[in-house]
Amino acid sequence: MRAAIYEGPRDIRVADVPDHVITEPTDAVVRVVLACVCGSDLWYYRGESRHRAGDGIGHEFVGIVEQIGPDVRTIRQGDFVVAPFAYSDGTCLNCLAGFQTSCLHGGVFGGNGLGAQAEKVRVPLADGTLVPVPGSGHSAAMLRSLLTLSDVMGTGHHAVVSASMRPGDTVGVVGDGAVGLSAVLAAKRLGAGRIIALSRHPARQALAREFGATDIVEERGDAAIEAVLAMTHGIGVDAAAECVGTNESMGTALGIVRAGSMVGSVGVPHGVEIPVGALFSKNKGVKCGAAPVRAYLPELLADVLAGRIDPGRVFDFETDLEHVADAYAAMDERRAIKSLVRVGRTA
Amino acid sequence: MRAAIYEGPRDIRVADVPDHVITEPTDAVVRVVLACVCGSDLWYYRGESRHRAGDGIGHEFVGIVEQIGPDVRTIRQGDFVVAPFAYSDGTCLNCLAGFQTSCLHGGVFGGNGLGAQAEKVRVPLADGTLVPVPGSGHSAAMLRSLLTLSDVMGTGHHAVVSASMRPGDTVGVVGDGAVGLSAVLAAKRLGAGRIIALSRHPARQALAREFGATDIVEERGDAAIEAVLAMTHGIGVDAAAECVGTNESMGTALGIVRAGSMVGSVGVPHGVEIPVGALFSKNKGVKCGAAPVRAYLPELLADVLAGRIDPGRVFDFETDLEHVADAYAAMDERRAIKSLVRVGRTA
Repeated sequence: MRAAIYEGPRDIRVADVPDHVITEPTDAVVRVVLACVCGSDLWYYRGESRHRAGDGIGHEFVGIVEQIGPDVRTIRQGDFVVAPFAYSDGTCLNCLAGFQTSCLHGGVFGGNGLGAQAEKVRVPLADGTLVPVPGSGHSAAMLRSLLTLSDVMGTGHHAVVSASMRPGDTVGVVGDGAVGLSAVLAAKRLGAGRIIALSRHPARQALAREFGATDIVEERGDAAIEAVLAMTHGIGVDAAAECVGTNESMGTALGIVRAGSMVGSVGVPHGVEIPVGALFSKNKGVKCGAAPVRAYLPELLADVLAGRIDPGRVFDFETDLEHVADAYAAMDERRAIKSLVRVGRTA
Repeated sequence: MRAAIYEGPRDIRVADVPDHVITEPTDAVVRVVLACVCGSDLWYYRGESRHRAGDGIGHEFVGIVEQIGPDVRTIRQGDFVVAPFAYSDGTCLNCLAGFQTSCLHGGVFGGNGLGAQAEKVRVPLADGTLVPVPGSGHSAAMLRSLLTLSDVMGTGHHAVVSASMRPGDTVGVVGDGAVGLSAVLAAKRLGAGRIIALSRHPARQALAREFGATDIVEERGDAAIEAVLAMTHGIGVDAAAECVGTNESMGTALGIVRAGSMVGSVGVPHGVEIPVGALFSKNKGVKCGAAPVRAYLPELLADVLAGRIDPGRVFDFETDLEHVADAYAAMDERRAIKSLVRVGRTA
């Protein structure tokens, strides 16, 4: 099969590798229809985090179940499925608590031979992991939205949930990448009263507004904090979603959130330091982590299928698997919000 | 009037100072009946934080309103009142949100001429700050419990609230000082299913059990974390209350809390660093700050007056104002959990 392979910083190739096959009785093998590139993929693409040379890459995909292991009970061959970026058994205490990213027997796609930017992916713990999509003949736009449920939409949702947002709240979103835009959409979906998006990029501002942002702040750093405070009676927002993962973005999120409120952070932290004294003086909190996308999939899937949300609009660059390197480059150079990778046919 | 004065580390004196008087029309002057020493007072007592030499000290008191300014509307002369350790207007956006410790016009007792270990205390913003206690002729035990509502009981409660504890949860409490013990009582009151108290001090263990602790862990540091994990299916507690404020206690609290859960921290932080990576990898969160005791006073007062909770049992040392230095020494040397200071008569 063909698969994207990481060879080193800014060196993504597509190669022939052995087909993924069932290795455990609880496995499934999924033939990938659509994959995509995540903002977190850019860390190793830019050489800012490590990834094993020669390993597969990518952790977001939808596809068709090609084969199941003998112990798989709820997933069937031919099912069209969304795969969350983490696999999980669905039965351990952490899964039952809704934190499948901390599954006692789980792991993540995107490395260790489980790259999703490939024609096929072996899915461990298929029953706990995969979510079949009802219906058939879904439109291209619908397929894109379904693909976002693999990571980015669930991650934006998680930022807002981790920030303890309540209906009617004023929410601040730091980060105008696909996750930040998804957080805007998630805040709107959950009933935010006002959504302040921090963005200086016209196309992203436009999509943020379409997703529900009521206000745009173009400033950065301290100027952004001042601008948001000026818009909120000097008090700050009721909840802040931190969707970048840098120390500056965390500082901005903590700066704009009001006394007694929470920052929900989903950006993989790089050099972030949390100023405990500043938190303590205003009763602020931080909750951060990789989204348990699997927990949110049923409710988000229902809203996507019903057309109530259209998160697939974050994709503004598209190519095929053979040109996956272009998909990375477009995001790296900020020409694209998020890059879609066409891999296989739906039927 | 007589008042405790800070002269330097381990040098607390009692001196004659000018009577506190009304200086703003929204002030009241309260004649103190009972005051006490807070664990946070030990930081400057030990020279580990700064306090101005010659200034008053102490921020917890109950007493009788002696005089009110012309703009005070809801507090009357002769009222027996509980004073939260922070004064607040009760009308600003932060107060209305329940975070009176971030009142836009507020401040705290315990310095800047507003020491509460004194015969009288000037109370700014009396209407927003003071809570009259209904009834009269309260017993000595009741008065002690009322005094805890000035800080320690509300602070223990806040730790549990900040940890997002839900009924039925298993709660871990780090710190067996008066705040930690109050957090045990608060967790019990709020319906915790299981309460694991970390303590190696027999008298404190006993009180923790009487307050509702179901399990005691005597270990510290990594051994404490291992012990708590062993008691919780290897997963950890559903919510953790950090009631010390050191880096070790924060590390323990973060170590014992399960994936996806919160640490509520009320110990004034000294040298605390929050390990962002460890938080992120398990979707853990921290919320920390000084308790908005004023917000919790009505509900806690009702339970104290009804005899449903008896938080005054944290006092196990008692003296009068002239011997207030002994009250500090007893806590400093860990001979006392919490020291009560008798100041004036109730009538």
